[in-house]
Amino acid sequence: MKIALAQINYHIGNFESNTHKIIEKIDNAEKAGANLIVFAELAISGYPPRDFLEFRDFVEQCEKSIDLIARRCVKIAAIIGFPSFNDAEKGKPLFNSAAFLFEGVVKSLTNKTLLPNYDIFDEYRYFEPNNIFKVINFKGNNIALTICEDLWNVQDNPLYNINPMDELIGQNPDIIINIAASPFNYHQTKQRKEVLKRNAVKYNLPLIYVNHVGAQTELLFDGGSLVMSSTGNIVGELNYFKEDFNIFDIDDIKNNAQVTDPNSEHSEIESIYNALVMGVRNYFQKLGFDKAILGLSGGIDSALTSAIAAKALGSDNVYNVLLPSRFSSKHSVDDSIKLADNLKMPYDIIKIEDAVKSFESTLSPFFKDTPFGITEENLQARTRGVILMALSNKFGYILLNTSNKSEAAVGYGTLYGDMNGGLSVIGDVYKTQAYELAKFINRNGEVIPVNIINKPPSAELRPDQKDSDSLPDYEVLDEILFQYIEHRKGPREIIEMGFDKKMVDRILKLVNINEYKRYQTPPTLRISSKAFGMGRRMPIVAKYLDKIN
Amino acid sequence: MKIALAQINYHIGNFESNTHKIIEKIDNAEKAGANLIVFAELAISGYPPRDFLEFRDFVEQCEKSIDLIARRCVKIAAIIGFPSFNDAEKGKPLFNSAAFLFEGVVKSLTNKTLLPNYDIFDEYRYFEPNNIFKVINFKGNNIALTICEDLWNVQDNPLYNINPMDELIGQNPDIIINIAASPFNYHQTKQRKEVLKRNAVKYNLPLIYVNHVGAQTELLFDGGSLVMSSTGNIVGELNYFKEDFNIFDIDDIKNNAQVTDPNSEHSEIESIYNALVMGVRNYFQKLGFDKAILGLSGGIDSALTSAIAAKALGSDNVYNVLLPSRFSSKHSVDDSIKLADNLKMPYDIIKIEDAVKSFESTLSPFFKDTPFGITEENLQARTRGVILMALSNKFGYILLNTSNKSEAAVGYGTLYGDMNGGLSVIGDVYKTQAYELAKFINRNGEVIPVNIINKPPSAELRPDQKDSDSLPDYEVLDEILFQYIEHRKGPREIIEMGFDKKMVDRILKLVNINEYKRYQTPPTLRISSKAFGMGRRMPIVAKYLDKIN
Repeated sequence: MKIALAQINYHIGNFESNTHKIIEKIDNAEKAGANLIVFAELAISGYPPRDFLEFRDFVEQCEKSIDLIARRCVKIAAIIGFPSFNDAEKGKPLFNSAAFLFEGVVKSLTNKTLLPNYDIFDEYRYFEPNNIFKVINFKGNNIALTICEDLWNVQDNPLYNINPMDELIGQNPDIIINIAASPFNYHQTKQRKEVLKRNAVKYNLPLIYVNHVGAQTELLFDGGSLVMSSTGNIVGELNYFKEDFNIFDIDDIKNNAQVTDPNSEHSEIESIYNALVMGVRNYFQKLGFDKAILGLSGGIDSALTSAIAAKALGSDNVYNVLLPSRFSSKHSVDDSIKLADNLKMPYDIIKIEDAVKSFESTLSPFFKDTPFGITEENLQARTRGVILMALSNKFGYILLNTSNKSEAAVGYGTLYGDMNGGLSVIGDVYKTQAYELAKFINRNGEVIPVNIINKPPSAELRPDQKDSDSLPDYEVLDEILFQYIEHRKGPREIIEMGFDKKMVDRILKLVNINEYKRYQTPPTLRISSKAFGMGRRMPIVAKYLDKIN
Repeated sequence: MKIALAQINYHIGNFESNTHKIIEKIDNAEKAGANLIVFAELAISGYPPRDFLEFRDFVEQCEKSIDLIARRCVKIAAIIGFPSFNDAEKGKPLFNSAAFLFEGVVKSLTNKTLLPNYDIFDEYRYFEPNNIFKVINFKGNNIALTICEDLWNVQDNPLYNINPMDELIGQNPDIIINIAASPFNYHQTKQRKEVLKRNAVKYNLPLIYVNHVGAQTELLFDGGSLVMSSTGNIVGELNYFKEDFNIFDIDDIKNNAQVTDPNSEHSEIESIYNALVMGVRNYFQKLGFDKAILGLSGGIDSALTSAIAAKALGSDNVYNVLLPSRFSSKHSVDDSIKLADNLKMPYDIIKIEDAVKSFESTLSPFFKDTPFGITEENLQARTRGVILMALSNKFGYILLNTSNKSEAAVGYGTLYGDMNGGLSVIGDVYKTQAYELAKFINRNGEVIPVNIINKPPSAELRPDQKDSDSLPDYEVLDEILFQYIEHRKGPREIIEMGFDKKMVDRILKLVNINEYKRYQTPPTLRISSKAFGMGRRMPIVAKYLDKIN
C-alpha cells in the first residue's frame, strides 16, 4: 500500500481555497499511484478555527467541503480532519474528527480523545472527547487512526487518564496514523519526534504523522510531517516551513528499508528565523497585503524586524521610516540608512520635532512648569506612532511592531506609540536572542550593520539614555524572565537559583503590573513554549507579586 | 443550625486583603451565634485567577491562607473555595476545591465536578474534574456541597454526562450548599434563579447559594447570594452589587417559614447601570487609582461614560477634556460643557487644530495632493488620543475608553485614537442600549443634556458627517449584531429573520474583518452573554464571511 502525505498551508475559514488545495493533492496522489492520502487535523477549517466553531453555519460549511472532497475519493482513500456535529443528547456539540473517505463517500469518522486545553489550546471549549475505539481496515491493513494529542499522553506524569493507543492496540493495528495541528516552538520539533518515537517503539508499529504548515496569525506551524519505522527510525520526512508532498510504501516503512537522510537538522536560531519569516509572509498573504512599514530607530530590534520583513516580503515591499528627534544620535540615522541600503529597501527620514513641539505648546498651559519626564518620552514615541499609522492608512501598508519579549515583559514601551502595529514580529524573542538572530542574518556578510549589534541599547528618548540605566544586563534579565514566564517559577525558586532577591522582586513586579499594556499589544509571532498573547492568560487587576517597592 | 452567608468583593492574588476580610466575617458570624459560615468559590485567590494557577507559588499561597483561616474556625465551621493540588499520578495538577473548616483544621475537601470551559470560563485549563461524591455531616445535617457549575447541568440539552447531585442524593442530604463565581450579564440573574429552583425542586431540598460580588477587570459579579426552600421559594436574598452578610436558621429555611421580601427586582437597564458603575469603581480601587480622564465629544457615548464614571468615582475625580477640531459643531462643545456643569465635573477645552496641522505639514511631502480621507479622519482621532494620554501620564489619570459595542463590532473607531483607554466602560453596550441608559440616568431630571440624546450621531471627523451615512439605523444594526454575536447565527439564518441580504452580508463582513482592531482594545466591562474580549475568541487572519463586497 502506498500512502501520500500532504502537508498544506491552510487558511482559516477559507473553504474554497482549502478544498481546492486538498482536491489538487488527491488528484496528484491518485495519478502517482497512491492508495491513501493523509491530510492534517482540522484541515478543512484551518487551525485553530476558535469561536467560529460556535457558528452552526461554519461547521455546516465544513461538512459541505467534506462531502465535496469525498466524491473525489473513489479509488483512492483519504484521511482528513474536520469538525463534526455530536448528535448525542448530552455533551458538547462537536467532535474534532478525522474522516475516512473512500468509494466516493465518508466511510467512517474517528474522533479525537485527548483534547488539549492548555497554553494556546482551547479544544475542550468546543469538543466532546471520544470514547469509542476502532481501527480502520483498508486493503488488508488495520490503521490505528489518532489525532494529534491522542499520542501525547506518554509523559511520566500523564495529563489524561486514558491512552487511545492502549485502547486500539488490542485490535491488532498494523500502522499508526496521526494527523496533527502542532505549532512550532523552538523546543517542540525535538520533543515531537521523541513523543512519536515513544509511541512507535511502545506499540511496535510504524507511524505516519501529518502536520500543518504555515502561519495562522500568531501560531507558526512548521510542518515536519514524517514516516517512522516501528523502531523509531525516521524513514522519511517532509520539509519544514514549506508545503510539501510525498508518497511512501508501507512495506518499505515496515521493513525499515528506506532510511533516507532526514532533513538536516536546523540550528535552533535558524528555525526561529525561518518561523518568523514564514509568520510575516503568511500574515500579509492571508490578509491580502503586500507592503509593510516600520520605524527604524537605529537599534537592534527594528533592524532585525526590518531584515526579517525584507526576507518575507521582498526588500521593495518594506518601507523604512527614520523618525529622529532632538535626542537621536547621528549614528542611529546613519546605521539605519546603512541597513536600508544593505538590503536595498526604500526609506525616508521624517523629523518629529515640529509635531512634538506642537503637542508641547498645546499642552503647556496644563503641564505648566512640570519637569521633563516619562510623559515627554511617551509623547515622542506616540508622535512617531501617529506618523507611521498615517502613512499606513494613506498607502495601505501594515505597520510592523518591533518590540522584543524582554521589553514587552517589563513594560518598556509606550502604548499607542512604539507598541503600535498589526503584527509583533519579535515580541516572543528575548533581547539576547535578538542579537543571535542578527548574527545569524549576518552569517554570510553584513546585512544588519555591525554597529547596530555592538552599541549599547538605548531608547533615545532623553539625553544619554541607556537601557542599562534602569534594567539589569539583558543576560540576567532574560534568564529571570525565562524562569518566570516559560517555567512559571515563583520568586523564591528564582532567588534560590542564585539571583539577587531585590532584582528578582522588582522584575517580577514589573512583569505583573504591565499586564494592562500587553493586553493591548498586537498579536505576537509565537516561537517559544510560552509567548505573550493567547497562550498566556493573566488577570489585569490583580495583586500578586506586585507589592514590593 | 444557623448558617451565615458572606458575600465579599475579593481581589485576585491579594491574599492579605482576602484573608483579612474572610477572618473578619468569621469573627462576626461567630459572635452572632452562627454554626457555619459559607464563602464563595475560589474566594481565597479571587476569581478568575487565570494563569496565576500555573504558578506553584501562587497555589501554595492559597494553601497557606486556608491554614491560617482554619485556625480561626474552632467552634464555628466554614466552607470556602480555593485551588488545591491534585496529588494523583495522572490528570491535571489542581482541583477547584471547597474546604470544610472546623475545630481549627481542614476537615475535608470537596472538589468541583463540572468545569465550565466556554465563554469567559477556562476551568478545564487548570482543574481535574472530581469523581468522588460524599456529603458532609455537620451537627446532624448532611450537606450536599457543590461548586457553581455543579448545579448547572439541568438543561434540556445537558453539556455534561454527569450530574453531581444525582450522585449525592443517595446519601440523604438535608440541604444543598452551592458556592459560586457566577458573573453578571443582563440575562443571568433570572436564569440563575431558575437553575437553582430546578435543583431545589428536583431534589426536594433547601438550598444555600453564595456568590462573589465586585468587578475583576471585565467580569462583574453581582452577588445575589440567596437561601431557597425546597419548593424553590426565595426565603432570603443578599444584596446586588454590594458586599453583604446575613445569617439564616436552617429550620426556618426548611419550614419555608420566613418568606421575607426578596430584594425588589431591578429593571434590566438599572442592573446594567449598577454593574457598570461597580465595574469602573472596582477597576480604579483595585489598581489604586482615584481619577479618570476622558474625551467628551458631545455625543452620547462619551457623555454616558462620563456620567457613569462620576457616579463610580465622584464628580471631582472625572476630568473631562473637550478636544474640538475644525469639524466640531458648536453644540458639541456647548452640550459637553452642560454635562460637566450638570454633574459639577472639572473640564478643559483643548483645541487639536495646531497639532493636527503640524502632522499635516510634516506629512505633506509624502501625502502630496492625495485627497482628504480616512487617514485625515484618523489623524484627528489620534491627535486627541495623544493629548489625553499625555495628561493621563503627567497627572496619573486612567483614560476611559468611550466606544460602544455597535461601533466596536463594525470597526468604527480609530486604533490608537478614540479606541485608547485603560478600560472600556460601555464597549459591551449597544448604541440602542446607550440611549436607554442615558434616559435611565435622566429619570429624575436632566443629567445628560437632552440635546445629546436627541441629535443624530456623528463622529464629526469631516464636514456634515453622520453615522447614518454609512451604517443602517442603529435599531436594525444592533439587532443584526445581536443575532450574530450573542446568538451566533449565520448569514442565512439572519436573512431568514427578514433582514436585507446585502445589509446582513456587509455587516457580518465588517464584524469579521475588524477582529484585528478589537484585539488591541482595552478590557471591556461585560454585561451581556457575549462580550468582546476574553469570552469571544476569534481568529484574526481568517476568511469566513468576508468575501462579500
